Amino acid sequence: MSIVSDAPTPQKLELTDEEIFSSHVDGKLSVELTAPLENQRDLSIAYTPGVAQVCRAIAADETLVDRYTWTNRLVVVVSDGTAVLGLGNIGARASLPVMEGKSALFKKFAGLNSIPLVLDTTDPDEIVETLIRLRPSFGAVNLEDISAPRCFEIEKRVIEALDCPVMHDDQHGTAIVALAALKGALKVQGRDIADLRIVISGAGAAGVACTNILLAAGARDVVVLDSKGIISADRADLGEIKADLASRTNPEGRKGGIAEALDGADVYLGVSSGTVPEEIVATMADDSIIFAMSNPDPEIHPDIAHKHAAIVATGRSDFPNQINNVLAFPGVFKGALDAGARRITEGMKLAAAEAILSVVGDELAADKIVPSPLDPRVAPAVAEAVAAAAKAEGVTD
Amino acid sequence: MSIVSDAPTPQKLELTDEEIFSSHVDGKLSVELTAPLENQRDLSIAYTPGVAQVCRAIAADETLVDRYTWTNRLVVVVSDGTAVLGLGNIGARASLPVMEGKSALFKKFAGLNSIPLVLDTTDPDEIVETLIRLRPSFGAVNLEDISAPRCFEIEKRVIEALDCPVMHDDQHGTAIVALAALKGALKVQGRDIADLRIVISGAGAAGVACTNILLAAGARDVVVLDSKGIISADRADLGEIKADLASRTNPEGRKGGIAEALDGADVYLGVSSGTVPEEIVATMADDSIIFAMSNPDPEIHPDIAHKHAAIVATGRSDFPNQINNVLAFPGVFKGALDAGARRITEGMKLAAAEAILSVVGDELAADKIVPSPLDPRVAPAVAEAVAAAAKAEGVTD
Repeated sequence: MSIVSDAPTPQKLELTDEEIFSSHVDGKLSVELTAPLENQRDLSIAYTPGVAQVCRAIAADETLVDRYTWTNRLVVVVSDGTAVLGLGNIGARASLPVMEGKSALFKKFAGLNSIPLVLDTTDPDEIVETLIRLRPSFGAVNLEDISAPRCFEIEKRVIEALDCPVMHDDQHGTAIVALAALKGALKVQGRDIADLRIVISGAGAAGVACTNILLAAGARDVVVLDSKGIISADRADLGEIKADLASRTNPEGRKGGIAEALDGADVYLGVSSGTVPEEIVATMADDSIIFAMSNPDPEIHPDIAHKHAAIVATGRSDFPNQINNVLAFPGVFKGALDAGARRITEGMKLAAAEAILSVVGDELAADKIVPSPLDPRVAPAVAEAVAAAAKAEGVTD
Repeated sequence: MSIVSDAPTPQKLELTDEEIFSSHVDGKLSVELTAPLENQRDLSIAYTPGVAQVCRAIAADETLVDRYTWTNRLVVVVSDGTAVLGLGNIGARASLPVMEGKSALFKKFAGLNSIPLVLDTTDPDEIVETLIRLRPSFGAVNLEDISAPRCFEIEKRVIEALDCPVMHDDQHGTAIVALAALKGALKVQGRDIADLRIVISGAGAAGVACTNILLAAGARDVVVLDSKGIISADRADLGEIKADLASRTNPEGRKGGIAEALDGADVYLGVSSGTVPEEIVATMADDSIIFAMSNPDPEIHPDIAHKHAAIVATGRSDFPNQINNVLAFPGVFKGALDAGARRITEGMKLAAAEAILSVVGDELAADKIVPSPLDPRVAPAVAEAVAAAAKAEGVTD
């Protein structure tokens, strides 16, 4: 693949199997002690007999578990391995390297402890039930790489069952960062989200969540496509989730495929794995915005996109404007836990998007609509905004 | 409480609530990264896109999960909070400080990663089922502080269901260390376990396991007492576990209580929470051995015990001869995982006891029948012996 952007030489092309695999030997996480355990005194404090005092205190007042154990700052990354990256249903064990990576990112960017819990079941009832039974062991749940439409039901039921922050990151992490990026692009262009014709390609986890957050942020004309074309109310093949989408989108009643959808559209938001022919891209409106987020192959290659659009973003690290979930999830969970939030609301997600955009600040430009995924200012800013939103909405303790 | 032993001033009496609680703030464990995550290259290796290579490899050959994730060296410490220390059924949340302490000890002494998983259910079916669903997430299970007789059924079923090392430490950790201590005492005295009259007070988790390991080690005359007295075949009130004990112990058909049991006995092994009057202790045979392991109050105070017995041990750190599970469990799990063992056998437990004793070496004496719980040589010696036993027994991969 030829790379002609101005970005630095793409680093991922330099990665060898050897360095990837050697860096994964024995995994990417380690459990460490927070205090020394060197002598009899240390042992008597951390374990018997001293520990009994702490157990007694929690038995008498269960809320003290948040203060005297690690659980209140512990995010479990939960997957059944059914929709892992672009690899599909590869199973719980094969999903583990992704989940360990996610846990590592929680620590690196938000200072939160995190462990992967992967499940040898894909049954929604059993997944929900297992998390209910494990509830005393953790402080928050990051659902990950669970296939659609199961992910919608599972997330909804886990949120209802547990009194702690729960978020399916493939949905909402993606949606938050996409909204931040779109707000950045619109700020560059001086446009309003309410005036745009937006096309979302993909009606899976990310597509549904992007649709919802854009509508919540003021978008009025959103058209969503699945593999069969534009989702419209007159389609007879829609399940519950897509029927709901149809009732809230496509106000002009458009029909057809990607060609009909993109003709004259202002925004293309790709969260599928297809590709869009250049002749269709060329039919978009002037000053259009293209977010081609499929990884590793964007639906529209940036070289093509730049010929027809004013602002381009992808999910890739080797082009500018990388839309990466890591901009959102560490700060969202940190903010929710900092505030003692019992759930993650739409308002908290919108606040997270604003905070991501705020970090770009004066550097905002067509090729800098979001911060770098490695920018250490992002997670604290997101956390602060999310915590404030949680308190304002009254979902805290 | 007056302390008249030769041991150093008991440190636990110096512990203040303030220092115990302050050292528990936010818990005792932390998840850390095993490699830096500083730049785009690091991110591309640990997360997308590099991680996909590792996921694909595991999807193609599931055994690679042991090599490229942390699960193969991860022990989950699992409790339902029904029998925590001497505190009883205080629930999952209140048990967490103990479980975190246990996880900390796994890291400190055996270098193994460990996390607590506490369950909001006490139903054996649900506990077993939950661990089956979580199986891809860990490499071994340390069951902890689960009440008897449920603990026997739960351990048996989890062992049958999972292809990995599983051990209820309250049973077998205690039994292994008690056997090591008894072997040490007998070596000091030049006696044979087969010649002894042994009395075990307590027929809960520890009592049953101690009985089993002593019989496996060659003991012939073991009498076990529960709260109602000596367990004998003619008692009509015995459940399945105690009826089984009755069939394998008490060859002389003794009846009565602790007075009848201890009269002329060579060994008292206390794993209950009662106390034994001095006049009964005085009826034991010459050169008797007393292990009063109840914590924090031994069934027979060492000052009393020493008046009537040749060798005395307790569970307390402020007297010599501390019988502490930490001498066993870190090395047992490390050895099992090092060897790729699929279960923990009786032979591995016996090997662990021998290894604990071997560390005492030339220091063996009446007041030094076991190593210090903090002796860093113990876990490696136990691990090596357990791994060798696993391989000899053919329970490895």
